[in-house]
Amino acid sequence: MEQISTENQATTVITSADLLKHWQGHRSLTRRVIEAFPEKEFFEYRIGNMRTFAAMTQELLAIAVPGLRQIANGSAEELNEHLDQATSKAAILNLWDEATEKINQLWAQIPDEKFRERIVTFGKYEGTVWSSIFYFIDNEIHHRAQAYVYLRSLGIEPPYFWER
Amino acid sequence: MEQISTENQATTVITSADLLKHWQGHRSLTRRVIEAFPEKEFFEYRIGNMRTFAAMTQELLAIAVPGLRQIANGSAEELNEHLDQATSKAAILNLWDEATEKINQLWAQIPDEKFRERIVTFGKYEGTVWSSIFYFIDNEIHHRAQAYVYLRSLGIEPPYFWER
Repeated sequence: MEQISTENQATTVITSADLLKHWQGHRSLTRRVIEAFPEKEFFEYRIGNMRTFAAMTQELLAIAVPGLRQIANGSAEELNEHLDQATSKAAILNLWDEATEKINQLWAQIPDEKFRERIVTFGKYEGTVWSSIFYFIDNEIHHRAQAYVYLRSLGIEPPYFWER
Repeated sequence: MEQISTENQATTVITSADLLKHWQGHRSLTRRVIEAFPEKEFFEYRIGNMRTFAAMTQELLAIAVPGLRQIANGSAEELNEHLDQATSKAAILNLWDEATEKINQLWAQIPDEKFRERIVTFGKYEGTVWSSIFYFIDNEIHHRAQAYVYLRSLGIEPPYFWER
């Protein structure tokens, strides 16, 4: 039997499949937050000189698939936060759903041992593969929570945070 | 040599030590967000009928140590979001720092294999140990991000999200 390194011998805290399901659960909630916005306010409403939620959503789309493509394929990726097609909520929801499928496809190409490798995403963000993916998820939670405040201040009840 | 189950043989995506460091990094950022609030606004400012960040911070304190105590010791815990001592920013920051130490102590009592066990936290939230801890962290990111909007709408620049 092959020698197993001490690190690999540690019991798995979460599996790769757990982490994908966790992220897609968050993405499903973010989709419902996008849906909760009126068309106009999605593209125009902002508080305290912050960005609109449409702009934040484009950032999330710019990160998810290109970031994961680099992790899966080693391709060089640029952060493109301005999507020409993203001119309506319906168009952005379509892009969101396309990204959901692509994330599943790319994830399947990431072998377990890759999660602990070091990587520099988008040419400048240093970390491990796992910490980069955690950053993608945490950044999504962060901006979506800001959209919760936008919705509340518009008098709209957002979806429950714990429903994925 | 003992038989190792297929699940345990999977390469670890993240280790227990990684996850603790990740959470404490987020908690360090949350501490700086608390510090960024003026005393009065921390306890009084709100948008759209939401809670003050002082109230949200008490929720985070109510979850972290008691939640982890149940995970480590199996003790029954109640969610107590009203802390009598939490009457000033300085008092809350003290509670925050005490919690930081207690989290480290309790974490050391959680064996790796426990992360995949099922648990019902606070008598009602079902999940695994890992998904419960992820919920504690995600909930902190969510409420802290709402505090970012409060700060921005007060004209105060919050700490950078990526600095932990």
